[in-house]
Amino acid sequence: MSGARNLSVALRRARVPKPRSLLRPLSVCAPSPAANSVRAFSVTSAANATKEIKYTSAAYPNLKRDSKFAEISADDVAFFKELLGAQSAVIDGVTTDAADDIEPFNSDWMRKYRGHTRLVLKPQTKEEVSKVLQYCNEKKLAVVPQGGNTGLVGGSVPVFDEIVINLSRMNQIRSFDEASGVLVVDAGVILEVADQYLAERNHLFPLDLGAKGSCHVGGNVATNAGGLRLLRYGSLHGTVLGVEAVLADGTVVDSLSTLRKNNTGYDLKQLFIGSEGTIGIITGVSILCPPRPKAVNVAYFGLESYDQVRQAYQEAKGHLSEILSAFELMDGRTQKLVHESTGTKYPLEGEYPFYCLVETSGSNAEHDMAKLEGFLEHIMGEGIVADGVLAQDETQFHAIWRWREGITEALSHLGGTYKYDVSIPLPELYQLVEDCKERLTKLGFVGDDDSFPVRAVVGYGHMGDSNLHLNISVRQYNKEVEKAIEPWVYEWIQKRNGSISAEHGLGLAKKEFIGYSQNDTMVKLMKQLKGLYDPNGILNPYKYI
Amino acid sequence: MSGARNLSVALRRARVPKPRSLLRPLSVCAPSPAANSVRAFSVTSAANATKEIKYTSAAYPNLKRDSKFAEISADDVAFFKELLGAQSAVIDGVTTDAADDIEPFNSDWMRKYRGHTRLVLKPQTKEEVSKVLQYCNEKKLAVVPQGGNTGLVGGSVPVFDEIVINLSRMNQIRSFDEASGVLVVDAGVILEVADQYLAERNHLFPLDLGAKGSCHVGGNVATNAGGLRLLRYGSLHGTVLGVEAVLADGTVVDSLSTLRKNNTGYDLKQLFIGSEGTIGIITGVSILCPPRPKAVNVAYFGLESYDQVRQAYQEAKGHLSEILSAFELMDGRTQKLVHESTGTKYPLEGEYPFYCLVETSGSNAEHDMAKLEGFLEHIMGEGIVADGVLAQDETQFHAIWRWREGITEALSHLGGTYKYDVSIPLPELYQLVEDCKERLTKLGFVGDDDSFPVRAVVGYGHMGDSNLHLNISVRQYNKEVEKAIEPWVYEWIQKRNGSISAEHGLGLAKKEFIGYSQNDTMVKLMKQLKGLYDPNGILNPYKYI
Repeated sequence: MSGARNLSVALRRARVPKPRSLLRPLSVCAPSPAANSVRAFSVTSAANATKEIKYTSAAYPNLKRDSKFAEISADDVAFFKELLGAQSAVIDGVTTDAADDIEPFNSDWMRKYRGHTRLVLKPQTKEEVSKVLQYCNEKKLAVVPQGGNTGLVGGSVPVFDEIVINLSRMNQIRSFDEASGVLVVDAGVILEVADQYLAERNHLFPLDLGAKGSCHVGGNVATNAGGLRLLRYGSLHGTVLGVEAVLADGTVVDSLSTLRKNNTGYDLKQLFIGSEGTIGIITGVSILCPPRPKAVNVAYFGLESYDQVRQAYQEAKGHLSEILSAFELMDGRTQKLVHESTGTKYPLEGEYPFYCLVETSGSNAEHDMAKLEGFLEHIMGEGIVADGVLAQDETQFHAIWRWREGITEALSHLGGTYKYDVSIPLPELYQLVEDCKERLTKLGFVGDDDSFPVRAVVGYGHMGDSNLHLNISVRQYNKEVEKAIEPWVYEWIQKRNGSISAEHGLGLAKKEFIGYSQNDTMVKLMKQLKGLYDPNGILNPYKYI
Repeated sequence: MSGARNLSVALRRARVPKPRSLLRPLSVCAPSPAANSVRAFSVTSAANATKEIKYTSAAYPNLKRDSKFAEISADDVAFFKELLGAQSAVIDGVTTDAADDIEPFNSDWMRKYRGHTRLVLKPQTKEEVSKVLQYCNEKKLAVVPQGGNTGLVGGSVPVFDEIVINLSRMNQIRSFDEASGVLVVDAGVILEVADQYLAERNHLFPLDLGAKGSCHVGGNVATNAGGLRLLRYGSLHGTVLGVEAVLADGTVVDSLSTLRKNNTGYDLKQLFIGSEGTIGIITGVSILCPPRPKAVNVAYFGLESYDQVRQAYQEAKGHLSEILSAFELMDGRTQKLVHESTGTKYPLEGEYPFYCLVETSGSNAEHDMAKLEGFLEHIMGEGIVADGVLAQDETQFHAIWRWREGITEALSHLGGTYKYDVSIPLPELYQLVEDCKERLTKLGFVGDDDSFPVRAVVGYGHMGDSNLHLNISVRQYNKEVEKAIEPWVYEWIQKRNGSISAEHGLGLAKKEFIGYSQNDTMVKLMKQLKGLYDPNGILNPYKYI
């Protein structure tokens, strides 16, 4: 078995490790802001980047502007200019020609959604947000809260002429307490800025994702972002200690507690986490941040079957336990795409149908390495993995992560991609990819030459969170293919009590499919809540539920 | 310095540890059900135990029965008997004389609250809970949901004639998935039963508290219980993945997801966590359970000042990091009380104004011990601790925990205790005890002989969660002392943005003080929510907000 031999070589290397201590080890997962728009989940081909973005109103012809909303007038603009003062706080396309300045706020980075707004407001304090909303609520002017505008479901851009309320000027770090690890920030603080601030204080933001160079902490909370550290640090529902938000009528909800424990009434802040700006605008966040790990390691394996990936995950949980910080799944096709796209030599000698990436983060490099070696010896001895490598230095560490992080970019070079971000119980997680491939193949859509619309059906994702990214790479967007995938894919997930949106949220893209993951009672209760907090429906209309 | 010498001795012992692997190491924290009522937070003296419990309606004369609620009739009882079938499902004190059978459901284990109910219902399915509530809502019959009835604020017993809906017959473990660690249980499953079930499957319930032998998982979720593992495993808002609950009108809310990630709409289940049965009755829970730690260690230290306790905590976070599972604070007076009450020899030779208990839980006994030794050497070398011991075997492990866990029992032998469960930012955590003691001393209330009402003002708690238990031990309950403490103590906490109820909840005991920890807007929003989900107010009236 050449695989086992290769792993033995890797293991021998692993036995004489150079203890590594990386100050900001996970920053490998953070491409620069400019790179984000290419590397993260792109649904358009690179070739499309120069084309005009289609208006959402044209892409969704059934969606009509709600006539209950007022049209923005010159008087409204005058009010906002008076209120917000600073010239940079209002981008006025109503009384001036500011189309070019407004365009970046009207469309998303995926170039998939585009609105018609003529007004962007950038308040700097919660009081300003409150006065803006109070005015809009009275005048029935619809608004869209906008953070870093890095979302994937069209949630942060207008559909019609909704006023964009952009939080980027609310960008102050309010406080950090080293004793408790509690950070308090304005909603518009960029995630990477917050994490760098914490790094200097030996702490870590308990959330990491590809868009960290652009996304806002407030937007992360509003969309309940998941990302790469959830396996280790848990969801924002557990780590966010407090939220400051403004309701549609201008009411300031000050629930910005910095306490880990506070059992005095309903935990209302939880409602804002994942509400995508539909019941209020988050203006501040307090969050519990763990100490920064002193040592980080990463290993990469080839496996013969999905069952072995599951076994490897179970063994990783057992052997690595409290230091396991990522367990990522990549199928062979994704790695082939990365190989072809980058021209980089495979980390392993053979090719395998499955790969996984295992990361540890701990406080003691030697202990972590010993645990990792025990894990490696076990999964090799049991024949669970066919081959593997362990990063020996920071360069190798980054290189290995690129085989996971580079998938989206590799796909984006090929044309369009239909992307599904789903959660399915682990035993059947990868079966969705197999079933989808079989279905599209039987229908004659999949093939190697250009006459077939579908190039590849691939899967990867956060194994540790039961979170699969199913990607269907197409040569061009094709209604027939689309009809073959939807609603089939949602029905497939519904049968397994999965989630049709594990971490990306609903926005506009998934709004109509909520019924596949939530029953009628839940949807009814959600609508009731929306009605309670935003009776005029001015907050982020046309989306979510 | 004799202290440093003693620690050296302890450290020498610590250097040749017998690696320990305890299958269920934390069960030390779980007294038997019978012992709970003595050991956990008692507010009555042992001498009071034989006395009749005062009716809550007499203790709170300003509280009047709300005349909007109907009185239970024989027809109502007949309906419930028909509906629930089994004879054991209805305890009928309306048409029969069942006073003795009903009494345990009318009063709490602290013997502090006592209601007047004449009817106890024990549904066995969510459908039965639904039909019961639908009927009660239509007839305007008030109800009190009741789990293990182990609460500390009078939340789980009636005040007047509210019908008790006891969940103890909903006691099935529904499923457990070893791959994901997700457990699904009926609300009435006893916490310890769930944890034992998990222990057999090498997992751990991510919550532990003194009452685990009696309390229900549903009650834990309904009260957002904190307990001993929060420092390590986080709050229930993060670990609970799904809730099944019944609203006042009988609507079944099925949000019993087993997924770690599901971003499809408002996370409504969060509202039920900590709502104390005021917006619905929880009938099922799904929760993420971590692998059971393979090794657990505990150390006990004497320190000269609270500042040094804070330093020790910071060092513990740094050195022990991912394996730190408890950091408990005990002041010298609490340890003296335990010593006097049990007659046990002190673990350390000298006496100190402060003590702390540090526990680690990890997957590798040798690594954990090495980290713990590094921590011990550092805090000794820096003079942060004066003396310390490290448990060498399971007997010592349990013995050390008893110095923390035995405080409540020691206090209960002395007479009454005024108890405050509060959260305060760490720098001032212990200052509340000092200030309270100074205040009561200046007022002439504190002294050693029996002419003084106050025997001792002591403090202890979960340092890692900023959670202090302030206890004022009194020779007898005394209105003058009470007036000197309240509202002074609440005002003190409010000034520091603390919480007047860190983990015990509001119930009846703290209802009127919510304003010290929540602003008017928050309280208004909470009342609005209560009105939305329970417009007739039948669920657990007279309490919470």
